[in-house]
Order: sequence, then C-alpha cells, then structure tokens
Amino acid sequence: MKITILGCYAATPRTLTNPTSQVLEVRNRIFLIDCAEGTQVQLRKNKIRFSQINHIFISHLHGDHFYGLVGLISTFMLLNRQTDLHIYGPKGIKEIILLQLKYSNSYTGYSLFFHELESSESEIIFEDDKVLVRTIPLKHRIYTNGFLFEEKPKERKLDIAAVKKYNIDKCYYQIIKNGKDIVLDNGKTISNKELTFDPLPPKKYAYCSDTMYNEEMLPLIKNADAMYHEATFLETESDKALKTMHSTAKEAATIAKLAQVKQLILGHYSTRYESIEMFKTEAQSVFENTILADDGKIIELE
Amino acid sequence: MKITILGCYAATPRTLTNPTSQVLEVRNRIFLIDCAEGTQVQLRKNKIRFSQINHIFISHLHGDHFYGLVGLISTFMLLNRQTDLHIYGPKGIKEIILLQLKYSNSYTGYSLFFHELESSESEIIFEDDKVLVRTIPLKHRIYTNGFLFEEKPKERKLDIAAVKKYNIDKCYYQIIKNGKDIVLDNGKTISNKELTFDPLPPKKYAYCSDTMYNEEMLPLIKNADAMYHEATFLETESDKALKTMHSTAKEAATIAKLAQVKQLILGHYSTRYESIEMFKTEAQSVFENTILADDGKIIELE
Repeated sequence: MKITILGCYAATPRTLTNPTSQVLEVRNRIFLIDCAEGTQVQLRKNKIRFSQINHIFISHLHGDHFYGLVGLISTFMLLNRQTDLHIYGPKGIKEIILLQLKYSNSYTGYSLFFHELESSESEIIFEDDKVLVRTIPLKHRIYTNGFLFEEKPKERKLDIAAVKKYNIDKCYYQIIKNGKDIVLDNGKTISNKELTFDPLPPKKYAYCSDTMYNEEMLPLIKNADAMYHEATFLETESDKALKTMHSTAKEAATIAKLAQVKQLILGHYSTRYESIEMFKTEAQSVFENTILADDGKIIELE
Repeated sequence: MKITILGCYAATPRTLTNPTSQVLEVRNRIFLIDCAEGTQVQLRKNKIRFSQINHIFISHLHGDHFYGLVGLISTFMLLNRQTDLHIYGPKGIKEIILLQLKYSNSYTGYSLFFHELESSESEIIFEDDKVLVRTIPLKHRIYTNGFLFEEKPKERKLDIAAVKKYNIDKCYYQIIKNGKDIVLDNGKTISNKELTFDPLPPKKYAYCSDTMYNEEMLPLIKNADAMYHEATFLETESDKALKTMHSTAKEAATIAKLAQVKQLILGHYSTRYESIEMFKTEAQSVFENTILADDGKIIELE
C-alpha cells in the first residue's frame, strides 16, 4: 500500500498548501480519496496517471473535500476517457455534478456511476478479488464517511526449490499458491506447507476525515496498519474543535492508541498554525508512532 | 485601467498554466472576470485583496470559466466577509451555487446577489458614477457573453495657477471640476476653459471569450482602448476552431482591425501548442498592436 498526499490542509486552497485529497495505490488499483479544488494539478505534479483512476471516494460535501471533482470529471472528458468511472459519496453528489454538466451542455464519453451513500452504519461499498472498501461512519457537521481499505489475503508464496525437488509440473503452481496439497504420481501426498511460504499479511488503511473524537469507530479500525485521522486543531483550541466538530491532535492520537493501529498519520491542519510540527509533538505524547501528512508526501506501508 | 491576468489558457488547469480568470481595476473598483478552478490561489499569488472584490462577471458555464466560483464564495464565508457580493452570469449559475451551499449546510454571512443573464441583446448590467458595464453577446456552443467596461467621462483637471490668480475660494473647486464657469465677486464671468485642463479621455476595455469569429460585436467594441479576444487555435487548426466555435489568432486580429481597437490582447490558448509566440506572429500579420496574455501578466492601459 502506498499513499500519496495531494493535499492535507483544512478550509481553502492557498499558495503553498492544498485542501484534502490523497491517492491510495494497492495491488495495482488506484483509489482517489477526496478531491478538493486543485486536485487535478496535484495529480499532475505527483505524476499520477489520470487514466488509472477508476474509483473516487468522497467523504462529505464540504467544499475542501470535493470542489475539484467536477473539474476532474470534465478533464476526463477532454482526455477522451473511455473507461467507467465510479464515484462513492454522500447523497446529493450526483445532483451537483449532473446539474453542472447539464448547464455546460456536456456529456461524458465514458460511463459515470454514482454510488450515493446515506447509511449511518458501516457498509461494504467496493469489493473485487484483491481489495475491499467499507465506510467508516464519522461524526461531523454534515453526513460524513471515512473509508477502510482492506487487502484480501494474498496467495501463498511458492517454494521453488521444494516444487522442483518433487518434480511438480508448472500447471499445478496456481493450485499450490491457493493453498492446496498435491498428490504425486506415486500416490504420495505433499502438504501445502512443504511447498509454500506464508504470504505477507494483508494490509488495512483507515481514512478518517473530517470527524470529531468518536470512539464508535474503534471496532472498525482496530489494528489497522495505518490510520489517517484529521487533526484540525491543537488542544489549546479544543473549544473550537468541539464547536466545529473537528478533532485535536491529542484526540486523534487517543483514537490511534485505543484502536492499536500501527501508525497514525495526521492531517487537515487549520492554517492558523505557523508550524505543523506542534501537531506531531502533541500527538506523540499519547501515541508514539505518529507522522505528519504533507502535500506531496509519499507514505509506503511495508 | 489595469488588467491582471490570473489565467488565460483553455480547457484544464495544469502545473504551470491556469484556465480563464482576470482582474480589472478601474477607478478604485475591482472586477473579477471569469473564475476558473485555481482562481483563489492566483488571486493570492498576485496579491489581489479578496475583500476588494465585490463584482464577479462570468462569461459562460463551461468549467474552465467558472469552476472556481463556488470555492471563492466559500472562502469569502471563512474570511467572515460582510460586504455584498454581486455575481453576473448566465441563467443557471444561481441554481448551481446554491445547490452546493445547501448540501454543505452553509450559509453566507454576507448578501449574495445573482444577476442572471439570458438576453441575446447587449444590455447594461452594472453602472455607478464612474463605470458602466455592458454585455457583449458572443457566439459559442452555449450561451455566452463578453463584457464591455467603460469609464464614465472624468471630471476636468483644475488649473491651480489660474484659480489662484482669480483668488477663487476652494469651495468652488468641485463645481469648476464639473465644468461650470465662475462669476467673480466683481461680476466678471471666467469661462471654465480658463480654469481647467481637459481630463484624460475615458477608457474602454472589451473582454471577448469564448467566441467564434463574430462581426456582430463590432459596433459595441469599436475604438476600445484594449480588447481581450480569445484565440484558442492557429489558422492551421481553423477546422477545429469552427467545429468548437472558437477563434483563431488571425480571426481575433481581424476583429481588432475592423473594430479599430487600440490594442489586442490574445488568450485562451489551446495547450496543444508548444509556444504561444506563434499566436502573436499570426495575429500581427493582420493587426500590429497585439500582445499576448500570460498568467501573472499585468497590462496597464495608459
């Protein structure tokens, strides 16, 4: 899993910082998470190929999380995109996009599928043979979801020396990688364990923005390899966090600690602070393995 | 009159170029013309104070001319704007903006006035004591207007030496600047010409984008001090210009020549061309006083 932060600041696009958008690459799939104004340019700057984006997840309908979406959809038209595009986001997103396309008398040459969300319970919204995506219901001023990206268990790794020793034909390799034992021509059964190594454990990434402190999400995000959690404020502005239904760095760290995630990634910083280092310091007093998102940063989950 | 080009390229925002937006400063008024994605950041980079923008003119509802508007309106909210904001643009613009504010559960703390346009005839859409703005009906794939910004005649310039010579009290200065003659205490009439100099002639700026070649606009833009005219293509792509209802550099120059404008400013270049210098070369074969718009460029009309 590889996360590219396109933007991780709250509220408005500025000269040197961008509002929320990030790209998750997992098992050759590219997921775009949120799409604020400026996302297109950030995609170009970070050399993400537009044609590889087939699924876009929008957390909520505040502008700093989706005002770049209609422009990206339009750019896909100009690039003569043919591939289906799937958009997952709160109810209303379809109406907003289609209204703008109607007035510009534009029609996409590709199929645009809207998967509108309105459940307050977690639900599976994407699944294929390698990856599963669930919503993480969040608590914010308007209907908001985080997203949990889970790799499915990987196939077992072939022990080339072992399969050669037993002279097993290549046509059986996939069956062995799937975990099956093998019966040799002489009738002897070779257990799968003798022929394979354990695969790397599947990874789990939780994206939680925007939200106030919310322990209800803990069962869902438990043991995640990484969690991106918003930290709009520091504890000195905890009254503002409460009022605007955002979190402080310390609150984000407390969620990370309780959920026993492996790594916490902070973001969605208010631009009132001169340095984002203070967010790290505050969070690390609660949860040591905290890193700071920043525009253009790449985070690999090994 | 001072024009700051925020963006002048067609279609999509890119790493180094921006789609259409520009700022016109005239007699201490600041007008924003078109507002593509990225306009907010361009305003910041060019040090235009957000609070000075009270009037925004949108030519048409293609994304590369207005996708930045909803974000700018939202940023004005975050900045606690109190002043009225007036938006002039095609019918539909109000529905698009208000739908997005509704779903984000946002309400502006300032008054937002939409002046929706649907006439195919030129009409006066703004007027105060110093400036007048008319629409310039354009021919494009959807309903589009250019805008003609006209200064009203300026007051006459006081000849300080002359008024002192006749010992005229300061309380008459404004009357004299308004063009009136003065009767002295001794009954003698001093003609205004003796007391004042001619003011600078009022300026006229025509913004024409997007449009195909259209001679119908000539009477409106005649003798303008400057005309910004789109030139999406070169003559080598005239078939594309015709099909997409855009203009070539040569066509823009022909309009400039027929209208006898003083200066032609080209923009809205397709990003297919490696250099924009070719636009200038092509236009100057027809109309010599042609300059190229470019992002960040400031053009003063002296």
